[in-house]
Order: sequence, then structure tokens, then C-alpha cells
Amino acid sequence: MFEARLLHGSIFAKVIEGLRELVNEATWECSGNGITLQAMDSSHVALVSLVMRSEGFESYRCDRNMSLGISLVSMSKVLKTMGKDDSLTIRVNDDSDSIIIAMESQNQDKFADYELRLMDLDSEHLGIPDTDYSCTIKMPSSEFSRICRDMSIMGDSVLVCTTKEGVKFSAKGDLGQGSIRLVQTTNIEKEEEAVIIEMKEAVALTFAVRYLSMFCKAAPLSPQVGLSLSEDTPLMCEFKIAEMGHVRFYLAPKIEDAEN
Amino acid sequence: MFEARLLHGSIFAKVIEGLRELVNEATWECSGNGITLQAMDSSHVALVSLVMRSEGFESYRCDRNMSLGISLVSMSKVLKTMGKDDSLTIRVNDDSDSIIIAMESQNQDKFADYELRLMDLDSEHLGIPDTDYSCTIKMPSSEFSRICRDMSIMGDSVLVCTTKEGVKFSAKGDLGQGSIRLVQTTNIEKEEEAVIIEMKEAVALTFAVRYLSMFCKAAPLSPQVGLSLSEDTPLMCEFKIAEMGHVRFYLAPKIEDAEN
Amino acid sequence: MFEARLLHGSIFAKVIEGLRELVNEATWECSGNGITLQAMDSSHVALVSLVMRSEGFESYRCDRNMSLGISLVSMSKVLKTMGKDDSLTIRVNDDSDSIIIAMESQNQDKFADYELRLMDLDSEHLGIPDTDYSCTIKMPSSEFSRICRDMSIMGDSVLVCTTKEGVKFSAKGDLGQGSIRLVQTTNIEKEEEAVIIEMKEAVALTFAVRYLSMFCKAAPLSPQVGLSLSEDTPLMCEFKIAEMGHVRFYLAPKIEDAEN
Repeated sequence: MFEARLLHGSIFAKVIEGLRELVNEATWECSGNGITLQAMDSSHVALVSLVMRSEGFESYRCDRNMSLGISLVSMSKVLKTMGKDDSLTIRVNDDSDSIIIAMESQNQDKFADYELRLMDLDSEHLGIPDTDYSCTIKMPSSEFSRICRDMSIMGDSVLVCTTKEGVKFSAKGDLGQGSIRLVQTTNIEKEEEAVIIEMKEAVALTFAVRYLSMFCKAAPLSPQVGLSLSEDTPLMCEFKIAEMGHVRFYLAPKIEDAEN
Repeated sequence: MFEARLLHGSIFAKVIEGLRELVNEATWECSGNGITLQAMDSSHVALVSLVMRSEGFESYRCDRNMSLGISLVSMSKVLKTMGKDDSLTIRVNDDSDSIIIAMESQNQDKFADYELRLMDLDSEHLGIPDTDYSCTIKMPSSEFSRICRDMSIMGDSVLVCTTKEGVKFSAKGDLGQGSIRLVQTTNIEKEEEAVIIEMKEAVALTFAVRYLSMFCKAAPLSPQVGLSLSEDTPLMCEFKIAEMGHVRFYLAPKIEDAEN
Repeated sequence: MFEARLLHGSIFAKVIEGLRELVNEATWECSGNGITLQAMDSSHVALVSLVMRSEGFESYRCDRNMSLGISLVSMSKVLKTMGKDDSLTIRVNDDSDSIIIAMESQNQDKFADYELRLMDLDSEHLGIPDTDYSCTIKMPSSEFSRICRDMSIMGDSVLVCTTKEGVKFSAKGDLGQGSIRLVQTTNIEKEEEAVIIEMKEAVALTFAVRYLSMFCKAAPLSPQVGLSLSEDTPLMCEFKIAEMGHVRFYLAPKIEDAEN
């Protein structure tokens, strides 16, 4: 049997919302250590990697390793019915072809149980090499979402340039061109609002805004996003899942002259 | 002449919003006792019965009985223009073929008058037999609305089962299946949030979610909804109209094996 | 060079939002005195005139008169990216074919720069004769927006009638007819909520609701709107731009018998 319980079920709902636009269905790998998931989007351009460690759950039990093929779209529908303060239990009984999603209201007067059929999915483990990035940017998730939205007005691609002073996003297209520059935070009072750039080497890389915007669906998971960049290397865009793991998105840079 | 005045016109707007999706047009029966309306939906599956007693109005005058054919869709449009705290007067002059809807702002600086043409409708009085139901559930209207919405994700039909401990709603379909169980309230502090089950006999009945969802359009009328159930008998879903009457919806159960 | 800076950039965004539905693109006339714009809507029915005086800007520089052909639709998209408390600088360098829109966050940690291509537009200066109106109505902008919306439910045209007691808007159509009467404010405590009618002569004029509704897009600019009316003369609908100018819309009355 597999059973994992979260006191704040909304965390799980945010994970699913963060993934489901990029990958409609995916295989969850459940083991004693926790839940992991790796998947590419349907056009095989971006990759997502999820880790939720067992110790982050209220209770966690996994008798044997399981690969669960799950429709994130269906699961999203079910999780949207969850109350704001509901607890959540995910369960798969032995020899069962379905996953049980159980929600309980805080004062124990409402119990919702859903059962979704599991899917047979081709599982592909994707090796993600450890990379020593040239540059890491930490910034508020909401600001990153907003920049992706604003840049998408101007063009399909966004150029990300880092300097010691800050980071600049720019795009151009039919309307003209635009850029947004964030200044590195010097006096950090509110850590969640800080913009911090750790840089060994300056980078200037271009990415498809469409994918960055999809990654931002995971922004509600964490007040800060981490962007790790190196020339000729996929961007890693990370949202931490409080105390228990992370969602990481990977996207290869576009090959074009970065002169805009 | 017919003239009825409500200090809080919004009550009337909520009545119309509660009915207009189920019945686009209907005949209002006005008499010295008040306003009543009975109508079936266009597919002749569900029935609605409205009672607004004369003493619930700020002032009420009905010189002779009148049957008024009214487009609820048009009336809804007009009532949506009403200010939050406006008073409302409905008037039909003798020998007139239109109904006058007059709204006044609380501080008497804005007066809106609308005149809608009356319609010739086939009036049908539908005998609704008094039923001694096996089971009556009282629960928060907002919770019932939410359950109908959540169950509609899982399937077209919802099975309602009552026990002494509580009530269970369940549905199944392509995605899988789901159920929501509400526990009977034992310690009633907030009457409006209570779930109370009065049961002579347990019931297990299946209904079309689509219709239940339409009934829920009347939920803003009252913090509590009453569901009255008996085997092989139409469900009665009642929303009280504060101190003055009620909206009652009737829906026959689906005939299928209630084994899910 | 032309350069104009506003501490509260949102004023400029509201100006553009107020105009862009009526005129998609227009020529801005920039001089030492400020910015003016005159344009007709694409169907040549309504006219808009904008004045933003130089002294209303935080800083203002215009070395020589310039006519700038600008897509208000594109500019609206760019201005929607502006933060609530951002300052705004508009700049056109000499011999440049583009306009630069620069936004700065209040605490100087975010800088957005956009460059939009200028357009070649046929410039037409439209003589607007000074009129001595029979009647001027001042009323809350939000109330005027609401009345236009409510009257549009009843018909395409709205008849505006003034008397010493107040002003009445009415419309009729397939549903029936409706009217809204505002009473002149006698005891003015809150100037912004007052309805004031200055009248030499009563008027009864009919206008296309569609255009009045478009004028209302400028309502966020000012808590009060001014409507100036004379028989056989275009209505002037004015929204002041705090301390610096105004947006004025002109619309000829419909020629029909005003007997409704």
C-alpha cells in the first residue's frame, strides 16, 4: 500500500496546477524516500522534475516502489474541489488500478473521496546532469510571472542578461521592443522580495516566453523562484516546496544572435 | 390595480435569478394573499413553486386576482440594474398590458422606472400533492451548491444516501468516482451552518446533477436549503424567502440501480 | 527632443484607456504648452479632444513642435504592464521614428523601457467652435457609466431631458421601456457625489448609447463628468484630468422626435 497525508492539502493542489499545463499526464515514482516525477512536455522541449520527500508529509507509507500513471488534468479537476483548509490523503491499495484522493475538512464534518483510474504510461527516466551554473538569480515568483507576461506582449522570445548590478529581460517584435531591468537588492529586509544575483560569469541567453510562462504556473508554490543559467545549457527554473522538495523546470536556450 | 412594494428590492431580484434559468417565462398569480407561481422547466422534468405572501411586503394591494405572463429573462435584466439598497415597487395598472418596475435609491436621489410588456402564456396549475417525506435534510445552501458543482465534475447523476450519521452524495463517470459525506451537526452554535437530518427511513435516490445545479441558483435567497426525500417520490428542494414565503423545486429521481 | 515625466504614471494609462476604444490610433501634437490630440472615431460620428498642459507634468521639455502618430492600442498594451505606483517618462529623441515609454518603480528597483514605432497618420485639425450651452450637468462619473450601461439594456438610443429638478435618461426597445431620473443635489456635502444642473433652457436630446458608453471608458480619470447640451448641437462630455487638462468627447444628437 501507498499512503501519504498532508495536513495542508493545498500544497499538493498547487504542485498539480504548476505541472498540468506543461504535462497533461505523467508517471509518479513512489518509494520510501518520497514521490518523484520527471516528464517532458508533449513537444519535447521542456522538462520538469518534481521531488516531494517523505519527511515533508504528515504521514507517509510506501510498502514497495510504485510507478503510478496519472492524468494531471483529471487530478487537477478533483483537487479544485478541495476546501482551503482541508487535509489531503493520497492512497493506492495493493493490486488496485486506481488512486484514492481523500479530503477532510478541518473540523471533521465533511469528507470527500475520489477515485481516479491509473493510466499505463511509457515511463522514461531522463538523466539530468548536475550543472555548475555560471549565474543564479533569486527573485520574487510573482515578479517573474509578471515579467514573463509583460515580455510576451512584445515578442515570443525573451533575452535574459545578467550583470553585477542586476538582471535584464528584453523582447522585441511587431509592436517594437521592451525591456525590464531589476536591480539587485542591497539591503535585504524582506527576504521574499529580494532580488539576489550570484554570478561567476555574465550570461545573455534567449528563451521561448511561452514555456517560461507555463513554468510560472508553479509560482504559487513559493514566494521566490530561482533561475540558474549557463551559456549553451538549459535554464533551470526552481520553485521550492516548503521544507519538502521542489519543482524544477528545464528549458534549452534558443540559438540566435543575442544582440537585441 | 396591483401594487407591491419591498423595502429591500434585492430579495425580489434573488427570486428571479433563482428561477430564470429553469423557467424563462412564467405566469404570476396575484391575489389578496400574495404572489404565487408554478411552472415546469421547458423539458418538463422539474417543477418550481413560488410563494410570496402579501404580509411580507412593505405595502401590498391587489384589487382583483390577476394572472401575469412575465419573461423572467427580461425581468432579470431589468432587476440587475437595481442598486444594492434600492427599494422596489411592482405595479400593474388596470387594463394595462405591461408591468411597471420602479426602483428608488435609499436617499431618494435616483428613481428608475421600467415597463415590460406582459405575455400571453398558457397557464397550467399543477397539483403538488402533500407528501410525508421519509427524510429531510437541512444544510447550508452554499455547501449544497458546492457539492452539486463538485459532483458534476465526476458524473451526470448524483446518488443521495442518508444515514443517522449524515448524508452522502456520490457520482461516477469517465474520470472515476467521487463522494462527499457530511456529518450531522451535534452541537449547533451557528444555526446557518448546521447539517440536520430528520429521518424516518433511510433513502438512496439518484438525481440529475444538472437540475440540482439549476436549483442552486436560488441559494442566495437563504443560508439554508431543505431537501425532502422519499423513495419513488420527487425530491423537494426548498429555499425559504425570509419571513414571506419560499421557492420549492421538485425533481423526480432517476430510475437506475442505486448500487454505486 | 521631447520628454515628459509623470510621477503618477497611472494618469497617463487612464487617458489612453479612455481613448483607445473610440480611436485606435491618433496624432499627438506636442508643443511647449503641452500635449493635445484631436481625433474622430473610425465611423466619423464622435470626436475626442485631449489637453494635457505642460505644467501638469513633473518635468516637461519640448524643443520643437512634434506631431506623433501613435497606435493607442499598442500603447495601451504597454501601459498595462505599468506598476500601480510607477512613474512614467515619455520620450522622443530627435530624428527618431519611435517613442520611448519608461517606467520606474517607486523604490527604484525595477525599470521598464518600451519603444514603440511611430506611425504616419493623416493629421486633421478639427475646429471645435466654442459653444454657449443651454444646459450643463455635473454628476458622478460612475453614475453616468452605470446609467449608460442600464439604458443600453432597453434600447440603442437614450433621451436626455433636463428640468430644474433634475435630469432624466430614457430608452425604449423590444423589452419595453425604461427611465432613470436623478434629482439635483441640494445639500452638497460630498462634492464628488453631487448632481448639479445649470440650465438656461430645458433640453431634450437623443444620443446613441453606444458612443456614450465608449466615452465612459474615460470615467476613471475623474470622479465627476460634465455633460453640456444645447438643441441641435453636439453634446460635450468632459472628464477633467486632475490639474492638468481634460478629455472632451463630442457627439451630435440623433434627429428623431423626442416624444418617448
